[in-house]
Amino acid sequence: MAGPEIANGNATSSLKPSETKGKTITCKAAVAYGPGEPFVVEQILVHPPQKMEVRIKILYTSICHTDLSAWQGENESQRAYPRIFGHEASGIVESVGEGVSDIKEGERVVPIFNGECGECCYCKCDQTNMCEKFGVNPFKKVMEGDGKSRFSTIHGKPIFHFLNTSTFSEYTVVDSACVVKLNSHHNLSLKNLTLLSCGVSTGVGAAWNTANVHSGSSVAVFGLGAVGLAVAEGARARGASKIIGVDINPDKFSKAQAMGVTDFINPKDEEKPVFERIREMTGGGVHYSFECAGNLDVLRDAFLSAHEGWGLTVVLGIHPSPRLLPIHPMELFDGRRIVGSVFGGFKGKSQLPHFATECGHGVVKLDNFITHELPFEEINKAFDLLIAGKSLRCLLHV
Amino acid sequence: MAGPEIANGNATSSLKPSETKGKTITCKAAVAYGPGEPFVVEQILVHPPQKMEVRIKILYTSICHTDLSAWQGENESQRAYPRIFGHEASGIVESVGEGVSDIKEGERVVPIFNGECGECCYCKCDQTNMCEKFGVNPFKKVMEGDGKSRFSTIHGKPIFHFLNTSTFSEYTVVDSACVVKLNSHHNLSLKNLTLLSCGVSTGVGAAWNTANVHSGSSVAVFGLGAVGLAVAEGARARGASKIIGVDINPDKFSKAQAMGVTDFINPKDEEKPVFERIREMTGGGVHYSFECAGNLDVLRDAFLSAHEGWGLTVVLGIHPSPRLLPIHPMELFDGRRIVGSVFGGFKGKSQLPHFATECGHGVVKLDNFITHELPFEEINKAFDLLIAGKSLRCLLHV
Repeated sequence: MAGPEIANGNATSSLKPSETKGKTITCKAAVAYGPGEPFVVEQILVHPPQKMEVRIKILYTSICHTDLSAWQGENESQRAYPRIFGHEASGIVESVGEGVSDIKEGERVVPIFNGECGECCYCKCDQTNMCEKFGVNPFKKVMEGDGKSRFSTIHGKPIFHFLNTSTFSEYTVVDSACVVKLNSHHNLSLKNLTLLSCGVSTGVGAAWNTANVHSGSSVAVFGLGAVGLAVAEGARARGASKIIGVDINPDKFSKAQAMGVTDFINPKDEEKPVFERIREMTGGGVHYSFECAGNLDVLRDAFLSAHEGWGLTVVLGIHPSPRLLPIHPMELFDGRRIVGSVFGGFKGKSQLPHFATECGHGVVKLDNFITHELPFEEINKAFDLLIAGKSLRCLLHV
Repeated sequence: MAGPEIANGNATSSLKPSETKGKTITCKAAVAYGPGEPFVVEQILVHPPQKMEVRIKILYTSICHTDLSAWQGENESQRAYPRIFGHEASGIVESVGEGVSDIKEGERVVPIFNGECGECCYCKCDQTNMCEKFGVNPFKKVMEGDGKSRFSTIHGKPIFHFLNTSTFSEYTVVDSACVVKLNSHHNLSLKNLTLLSCGVSTGVGAAWNTANVHSGSSVAVFGLGAVGLAVAEGARARGASKIIGVDINPDKFSKAQAMGVTDFINPKDEEKPVFERIREMTGGGVHYSFECAGNLDVLRDAFLSAHEGWGLTVVLGIHPSPRLLPIHPMELFDGRRIVGSVFGGFKGKSQLPHFATECGHGVVKLDNFITHELPFEEINKAFDLLIAGKSLRCLLHV
């Protein structure tokens, strides 16, 4: 793969990072032109970071189900093309815009789709990791500062951003609120840091921050993709004594065992409802259940598999269906609770570095999540692997 | 009103409590013979308490909306007639059955519909006030011990129990798990103790135990009946700085002001949705909202009036509708939480005495809840007052 080039009048040439500062970069990106249409890996223009923005040279990016459902255009009102998807990545800061003081050129960073401005009422409250300006907003497609895109086609047509990040590109521009510096974590490879950008943080954080899984507890994880397995890994790290994995794909089970899953249920093999099976296995229900499948029937199973009186269900899955929560209000009187979890409850800029340190210490094992690696150009193949349920994370080398 | 009599062969006569022990008592009760049919105040037989049971001479009973909806037979599958309703009361122990060691004849007690056996997994867990045997079960109509009723008509036909309590009777038999001794709380009248048996404990406890309302916080209470006002009183006692009361009956507002409600919203006077109005008044939403109306549209308003990121909605209202929670799963990602609360989260036998002590110290003011008093025989009039929204609690002198 050729190095990046900068547009400098009509001349383009391979340059060192310091030579690209303040200039428009011509580089490769995987552009989506319509819902479900194959990505086109082509030359695009990446404009310089503006005030409080950071331009990152992406080295690795992987694919998450959120990219998949957004690319497939499941929610029509959120469609915007051409667009650069991708939100799980790691890279090196190429340059920073005016006013950025906490991040410098050459530092190792991960972009985060759920930013932290540090100044809004949410960022100042320790009960939430929401952010007024840089939270998750699937409708947002331009930069916060000036409402414009920093990407354009080689012919000058704007290309839209995605989830504050747009990492399917050799270079991307993100708000500094959405960049976490992990410069001193030398015992973690950039490849593994990629996982902290979304999937592993989302899953482990749901177990640690949202549910606060306790030692000796019982846990059920519905959906054993990367996020579900990260929940299991987080529960294992917290000392949960029983971790039940539920998935209709039995191929997931051997992988899951390595992440601490102690028992498996394949709903296709069961005659009775899964929640009844789990209640039998756990003396009435688990302490914590996690819905990582994005399916409302599964969500109800997860809810009912939690123990009356204290069971907590954490919803992580994306539910594009217009259907409402399949829970009757009177069922709340049984003492089961249900909450959502975004980015594992982590405040990205202030809490992710400590989490990375813990990963570096081996508290959470990152090595099993990357099941495939491909060159960036084969991004369509990587999507196929995810759709087929064959990969947890396929790392693209950008 | 004549004193109680005991059936002693064919002879009946007025007797002292100690003379009734072990015998069937003939006394008055308000018997419901069908859904919504006027109560018949008539002589019935109350059989002696069996193992681990207590027979209580009821001195005061009041009426709660749960009695109303059960009497009206809103849920057909829960109907059972003839039946003695009533669950909010106070009285004196007449006698105890075999094995009851914590309660003695002559002690002041309140019956509780949500019992505490002290031995099940729920009673042993400090996260819940559920009880495996003596929790709220609207289908239960006989005693736990032998599956029989302790009430019968004068002709010997069984009369069913209700919610572990059945207090619309001069005498009732309840499991000792459902009796709380408040013998040493001499600065609280028996009249006021009645309120701790359900309404005030349910409301104040929802604010204290379930929501854990903090000083300086903002609160919205939907539905200003006795339970809603008890929530307000509990929030006031905790130092909430803004307590917004919502009700379509403006007559409730003057009463509510005495309970600490600082702002009022009558949805009928508003052009915009109530949740929008509350968000405007509170900089984005309240810390805690309480649904005390038993209406799903109100529930949604309550949910959306809580602040994103940390707002908690507590459901206290009874929802007989088959409709599901009007909340989309993706809305859980906004960080709002919703939980149910039964009997204010109080474990009755172990925690109510301390709560009564606090009430005795004036932490919570009980005096404003009893708006009417009537002789027991006028129970039908008391129901009319509740239906018309004129009374908070109408105390019946039994």
